[in-house]
Amino acid sequence: MSRIDFQTGPEKYHHWRLEVDGHTATLSMDVDENGGLFGDYELKLNSYDLGVDIELYDALERLRFEHPGVKVVVLRSAKDRVFCAGANIKMLSQASHAHKVNFCKFTNETRNALEVSGKEGGQHYICAINGTAAGGGYELALAADYIVLVDDGSASVSLPEVPLLAVLPGTGGLTRVTDKRKVRRDLADVFCTLEEGVRGDKAVKWRLIDETVAATRLEPRLQELADQFAAGSDRPDDASGVSLTPLKREFGDDLVRYEDVTIDIDRALNVATVTVHVPAQGIPGDVDAALAQGAGFWPLRLGRSLEDAILHLRANEPEVGVLILKSAGDPAQVLGYDEFLRSNAGHWFIREVNNLWRRTMKRLDLTSRTLIALGEPGSCFAGFLAEFMLAADRSFMFIGQREGDNRPVAELTLSDSNFGAYVMSNGLSRLETRFLGEPKSIDAAKATIGTAIDAAAAEEAGLITFAYDDIDWDDEIRIMIEERASFSPDGLTGLEANLRFAGPETMETKIFGRLTAWQNWIFQRPNAVGPEGALRQYGTGARPDYDRGRV
Amino acid sequence: MSRIDFQTGPEKYHHWRLEVDGHTATLSMDVDENGGLFGDYELKLNSYDLGVDIELYDALERLRFEHPGVKVVVLRSAKDRVFCAGANIKMLSQASHAHKVNFCKFTNETRNALEVSGKEGGQHYICAINGTAAGGGYELALAADYIVLVDDGSASVSLPEVPLLAVLPGTGGLTRVTDKRKVRRDLADVFCTLEEGVRGDKAVKWRLIDETVAATRLEPRLQELADQFAAGSDRPDDASGVSLTPLKREFGDDLVRYEDVTIDIDRALNVATVTVHVPAQGIPGDVDAALAQGAGFWPLRLGRSLEDAILHLRANEPEVGVLILKSAGDPAQVLGYDEFLRSNAGHWFIREVNNLWRRTMKRLDLTSRTLIALGEPGSCFAGFLAEFMLAADRSFMFIGQREGDNRPVAELTLSDSNFGAYVMSNGLSRLETRFLGEPKSIDAAKATIGTAIDAAAAEEAGLITFAYDDIDWDDEIRIMIEERASFSPDGLTGLEANLRFAGPETMETKIFGRLTAWQNWIFQRPNAVGPEGALRQYGTGARPDYDRGRV
Repeated sequence: MSRIDFQTGPEKYHHWRLEVDGHTATLSMDVDENGGLFGDYELKLNSYDLGVDIELYDALERLRFEHPGVKVVVLRSAKDRVFCAGANIKMLSQASHAHKVNFCKFTNETRNALEVSGKEGGQHYICAINGTAAGGGYELALAADYIVLVDDGSASVSLPEVPLLAVLPGTGGLTRVTDKRKVRRDLADVFCTLEEGVRGDKAVKWRLIDETVAATRLEPRLQELADQFAAGSDRPDDASGVSLTPLKREFGDDLVRYEDVTIDIDRALNVATVTVHVPAQGIPGDVDAALAQGAGFWPLRLGRSLEDAILHLRANEPEVGVLILKSAGDPAQVLGYDEFLRSNAGHWFIREVNNLWRRTMKRLDLTSRTLIALGEPGSCFAGFLAEFMLAADRSFMFIGQREGDNRPVAELTLSDSNFGAYVMSNGLSRLETRFLGEPKSIDAAKATIGTAIDAAAAEEAGLITFAYDDIDWDDEIRIMIEERASFSPDGLTGLEANLRFAGPETMETKIFGRLTAWQNWIFQRPNAVGPEGALRQYGTGARPDYDRGRV
Repeated sequence: MSRIDFQTGPEKYHHWRLEVDGHTATLSMDVDENGGLFGDYELKLNSYDLGVDIELYDALERLRFEHPGVKVVVLRSAKDRVFCAGANIKMLSQASHAHKVNFCKFTNETRNALEVSGKEGGQHYICAINGTAAGGGYELALAADYIVLVDDGSASVSLPEVPLLAVLPGTGGLTRVTDKRKVRRDLADVFCTLEEGVRGDKAVKWRLIDETVAATRLEPRLQELADQFAAGSDRPDDASGVSLTPLKREFGDDLVRYEDVTIDIDRALNVATVTVHVPAQGIPGDVDAALAQGAGFWPLRLGRSLEDAILHLRANEPEVGVLILKSAGDPAQVLGYDEFLRSNAGHWFIREVNNLWRRTMKRLDLTSRTLIALGEPGSCFAGFLAEFMLAADRSFMFIGQREGDNRPVAELTLSDSNFGAYVMSNGLSRLETRFLGEPKSIDAAKATIGTAIDAAAAEEAGLITFAYDDIDWDDEIRIMIEERASFSPDGLTGLEANLRFAGPETMETKIFGRLTAWQNWIFQRPNAVGPEGALRQYGTGARPDYDRGRV
């Protein structure tokens, strides 16, 4: 498979149409059957593959940044009598286990971003179902704030994965049915085994959708709903958007260069070093100046680059098992931006930049590679960049300077931003998660806000794992990386997925922990993916042949 | 493999010694190397298999019932310089996927029962680690209320599964490290990759244990701790225990008969019907009379039989995919017992009966078979037996009587017991879980307490899934069971594991949902279980050969 590219734009969309009319945008799914990302499958009936979802996520991000006046997004299908048939089965049956898992992760992240769009950005999603919404199609609808189903005796919602495909509705479906829609568990059980799904009033009564509407009443009703949701939005009426111009990227065999992020891959060790660079030029004086910089506003450009870098590494560099996180630049500059993001957090544009950063740090948390943060001389882990240190599985700081290197010693500086602005999927800040057992350490950390802490003090405060000096650093880091490279990648994935998310569970952690883990298991089971399994047999007319043993 | 029997007793133990001295019992692990349950492996260094754990659970249950005066249990090793080496690796490498998963489920249930023993029964566990506590050995210690480690420069705790075996510490270890001990996540990461583990003061500082003690001080210190914990226990000082005499059981090819439970298996459909029978004789007048009945006290005998029945079906009947839950008897009799259990709930004996029922219903929730409750004429789903209806994936009631059958019509009667006495792993009652989206339905259900509701009213109140009359019943039930039998067992396992536990997450749901699901995935991966995988290569001197791709 050639490199999967997560960058696109409306002018390149194959599968979606985006129209804006006042406070309402309409995002219409119109999948091009012949526009599959790879392999030999046709995307019939608005079924999707990763390429379709990449465009959806792009549209979502553009709606946030390029359309400040859009308060409501109507998510619908441009096809007649079909909303969306879910993930394409032939694609799934051809895809590798790793691709399936990565595909589900990205689609889940996109649904989550869509779901919180109203809450965190004042942009609400209304889903209009005009036909069959099956499997991933209904799961897409489930992410919306409100679901309207056309009552024409045919439009329906269904999760037929278990009966038809022997896999789970894995894009959040089961979790949203029980925990968001709060469907009664026995009705949920019935629903999830009904190939034909549920329609009409029963779908409302079972809490699967919010309302039904006659086909002739659909458009005026959507208008009413859009007006209602728009009235509750704090997005501005008259503001110009920020155009998300293409990221400048350069790909080499073992490197990727963005303006603010570089990736360097060591193929012998299967390690990628991701370095964040801080520009030397000044911080905008006010939000207007930041708006004038547009997509060039550093925290935005950095967030987009980092997001693309993470997605690229996940999809295209499966053998890279360790990500080394580094930073380079002046901590004062970072803290200046950090203060700017905080003091203007109420402005729609800066709010979206903060939302992007939160989303991107969550992607990092959910990346199934070992994360190691290294604070070396010349680094700038301060404010929102300090989140790297806190997101890492292990973090290290260099004590003092290297011989012959006069860059400033490594320091760590916390700001208010580290205490709740960028929460993890579990709803806690990374510091709260870190210090679940030692709440006093959070108070101690708070007392350091704005103060640069050196390596020894950071270790003492429990903010990093270990500090080493010039004598030990190279050996300790090398040994750790070599050791990590010697472990089973699967064992590490399971270990990290458990250790990273202590404390409370949310719908997000349930989706990525419980639901995804079960789906990953099923994606390995012969009953689903074996030669006689349901995914392979689907559409052939043959019945799958199941091993009847319960595990 | 011959039938795995979950019934045993101290006189038959191969691996444990149980000694009682005043308010303290000592439970000493002394695994017989040659006492493995199956296959060709030696249980060296206090490593364990399912057989060892069956004895541990038996001891736990006897300590609750037979030793009311025991307020503290010291869990220790009878072997020199070794506490416990965890699950036996050779056993794991020989075991089928299904056996591994079932083994982990039972050991997890035993650790959970041990963990809540202090809280729900006033019997606290102190763990004394005198040597290496590796993997499952440390996980066993983690379930205790307090962990003491001998400080002799050699005794240590470790979770070396990932580096040595490419699997997770799957018996609650990761969850208890992050959520019970609240170990900092980066230190947890380091700890879980250190083959040799951590000892001495570092183990305290990292929150892995509670204290270290010099070897010479161990015995007096344990005495001190036992006295402290005993002072906080409300178990009686002078009371006679109830001897858990052997269950009367009879096994046939397609049936098992207990005094109060029968299992009938339909091999064509792979369905087992589990029927609970209610005795006609009177309810004891007071607790003394119940104590005089001893193990014959019906709710105790029923709980033990049902527990054994569930464990038997899980371990020995893997092809049985559906459990039909039925009851037969006089609802008034059940409600009489229900009232007896409630009004005497503060008595140590009745408290333990209630604890056993709660534990057994949790086992049912966690049983990866479809659960269908059928309320037919002559049934008695009332009070604590109504929990069957609420635990089922689907529940049905028969409207009216069958032709030529004059047994009373099916009714459902709730009692106070259904509103919190027997909570699920998620900490909610089954009714609260059921009505997460409709809290008013809980109030409506409360208003029916003590009133027998017929099938139509139960359906209307949302207390059952569907009600059918004589004309439809047989066909509807048959079609549903046949349909269920046609689905992939793995898909159903994943579906049920997600739909049954809506709402809040607890350490228990995390262990069975997140941790177990990841472990099950890893137990399918070639890096762990393939011919070149770590489990197969362990002990051979050869290094496992890993696929380096991250998923």
